[in-house]
Amino acid sequence: MTDPVQLTADLIRCPSVTPEEGGALVLLEDILSRAGFTCTRVDRGGVCNLFARWGDKGHARSFGFNGHTDVVPVGDEAAWTRPPFGAEIHDGILYGRGATDMKSGVAAFVAAAVDFVRDTPPDGAIVLTITGDEEGDAVDGTTALLDYMQAQDERMSVCLVGEPTCPNEMGEMMKIGRRGSMTAWFEVTGVQGHSAYPHRARNPLPALARLMDRLASHELDRGTDHFDASTLAVVTMDTGNAATNVIPAQCRGAVNIRFNELHTGASLSDWLRAQAADVTAEFGVQIDTRIKVSGESFLTPPGPLSDLVARAVEAETGRRPELSTTGGTSDARFIKDHCPVVEFGLVGRTMHQVDESAPVEQIRQLKAIYARILADYFA
Amino acid sequence: MTDPVQLTADLIRCPSVTPEEGGALVLLEDILSRAGFTCTRVDRGGVCNLFARWGDKGHARSFGFNGHTDVVPVGDEAAWTRPPFGAEIHDGILYGRGATDMKSGVAAFVAAAVDFVRDTPPDGAIVLTITGDEEGDAVDGTTALLDYMQAQDERMSVCLVGEPTCPNEMGEMMKIGRRGSMTAWFEVTGVQGHSAYPHRARNPLPALARLMDRLASHELDRGTDHFDASTLAVVTMDTGNAATNVIPAQCRGAVNIRFNELHTGASLSDWLRAQAADVTAEFGVQIDTRIKVSGESFLTPPGPLSDLVARAVEAETGRRPELSTTGGTSDARFIKDHCPVVEFGLVGRTMHQVDESAPVEQIRQLKAIYARILADYFA
Ligand SMILES: [Zn+2]
Ligand SMILES: [Zn+2]
Repeated sequence: MTDPVQLTADLIRCPSVTPEEGGALVLLEDILSRAGFTCTRVDRGGVCNLFARWGDKGHARSFGFNGHTDVVPVGDEAAWTRPPFGAEIHDGILYGRGATDMKSGVAAFVAAAVDFVRDTPPDGAIVLTITGDEEGDAVDGTTALLDYMQAQDERMSVCLVGEPTCPNEMGEMMKIGRRGSMTAWFEVTGVQGHSAYPHRARNPLPALARLMDRLASHELDRGTDHFDASTLAVVTMDTGNAATNVIPAQCRGAVNIRFNELHTGASLSDWLRAQAADVTAEFGVQIDTRIKVSGESFLTPPGPLSDLVARAVEAETGRRPELSTTGGTSDARFIKDHCPVVEFGLVGRTMHQVDESAPVEQIRQLKAIYARILADYFA
Repeated sequence: MTDPVQLTADLIRCPSVTPEEGGALVLLEDILSRAGFTCTRVDRGGVCNLFARWGDKGHARSFGFNGHTDVVPVGDEAAWTRPPFGAEIHDGILYGRGATDMKSGVAAFVAAAVDFVRDTPPDGAIVLTITGDEEGDAVDGTTALLDYMQAQDERMSVCLVGEPTCPNEMGEMMKIGRRGSMTAWFEVTGVQGHSAYPHRARNPLPALARLMDRLASHELDRGTDHFDASTLAVVTMDTGNAATNVIPAQCRGAVNIRFNELHTGASLSDWLRAQAADVTAEFGVQIDTRIKVSGESFLTPPGPLSDLVARAVEAETGRRPELSTTGGTSDARFIKDHCPVVEFGLVGRTMHQVDESAPVEQIRQLKAIYARILADYFA
């Protein structure tokens, strides 16, 4: 039996802060190769990724797991009470950067898969996509792996992402979707002038204020059956003018939108540009709008895949997980174009924080859940 | 006859960039003392000022002139085609920092006063208040001189400020008032959070946008018989948040108001604080408001003093000056609490700019105007 706690600890000792590989993927490739997985390093743009498959390529029953070995920086290292790459266990708690997000998740599905193919080799395939670039730009991470699969005719029938999904108690929540995310930057240009003669200038600031007020006041929707309401947050407005007798020529603002299935990056871009155009016309200023859609929303409606995962979680924890679409983005936003995808993992409370940690018992439970999912899927 | 062009040139060669005295007041004190003026240096807070009186202290007919010898920095010295402290004359134009604002004005009224008391000693007094701190904070400049006069029972019956007042042509405009000026800074504090969960944060940015939009949209008034409409200019909004997934805890904004006789610094402060309080209540944020009133508006309604000046200007230039209240602030905002005050001086077009300059003919004309005013006043 492969010990997922030991494997998590070994991974934590690899200092794989994005974009460093840190030895984590090398370690996994070694374990998976010896277990009979075909392993391929799919490195792109300075980022390392690992593709691993057990069983026949393109098999109609191919179960996928996705995860990442990269971690966010330790932050204020002096504030940690345990060394962030030490993987020390105290009172049944494993400490270290990545203990929940998500070296434990990767260790749990690798351990489950390795044991499963050894003990009960299925009629099908198991496909693992493990990236070293989830916490960073994510341009060359899971996307690179999916591009590779496309090019090589590799496939997954369904996919489970091992990100932490439980707010407080193990097993209470899984994700069947996530809202999309996008950011828009507005640069408003008017005509500089003296504060005493505003009619000779064209002040960009009231235009920016009006635009931001309108965007922030607008109700995008009231939520759907599966999603919370979409939200728009003004995240910054800046000018950098210290001279109170000067009307500046330019100012900038940005908004971040988290949107559900009622919108797309394109539909919201159209709306944002139309709002900017209205303000342009009202104030006679120029507005340059730059938009970056980080991810479209995705939803895998409740069905066979979510049932499979929820049953396994309930069997191992006694809790029926809520099917949620809350939270930030994850790489599921890329996988949803490939196959049905859901997410289930540990309690995420300490992720990205000082003294990130996970109870060893929950890591063992997670492996058991993943193992049960594999067993049920191939039953 | 004292040559006002020579005196302007001598003053330009004194590098009296605020708060440096640069030799300018020493030079004037020497000339005025020899002409029979009682001179007192009224230095305060590291700034030099000169009080000079000819005639009896507290005389019921005391004519005042006010001006400043300090100048703004030269800016990009390489861009000047003449040395900024060289006082070179080319084609009848005197070049140098202070050529219009306002070493020429000071030279013209000093030359006029010196000649006048020598040739036709009046039954009355001439009082000159000359400061070295008009372009700076102006806390220890004309204010210090007026405080000194108050303490010493010195008086002016009326006062003429020699700042440049003509937009393009010599003689076309004098000032009988100026709008007041004030700046308000707003610091809006909410609760920081993640862009994906705006309901858990309290975003200060929409509150700032709403406040600035309201302030900028509000019509303060439509002007009066003597004043343009009051204006409010948003001059900056700043946050400094580069993380688009973070709702910041704080942001800042500032507005500058130029106001006429329908308002006071206090009435506008009340209005600004009420607007901030409304937004505070609407958005549940905290708004700290800091207000600085640089100067109240002042108006010396058309009457004997403006008639006296306008007649002299018309006699010397052929132009009847417009009685205006436009432009930024001047030290007249302090003097108005002491006695009726108006302003007349050169064409201000090159003030504060590279290659600041004045035609020597206009400097001579200005002395003639000031001399005629003295003659008429004491007639
Ligand atoms: Zn993660
Ligand atoms: Zn001046």
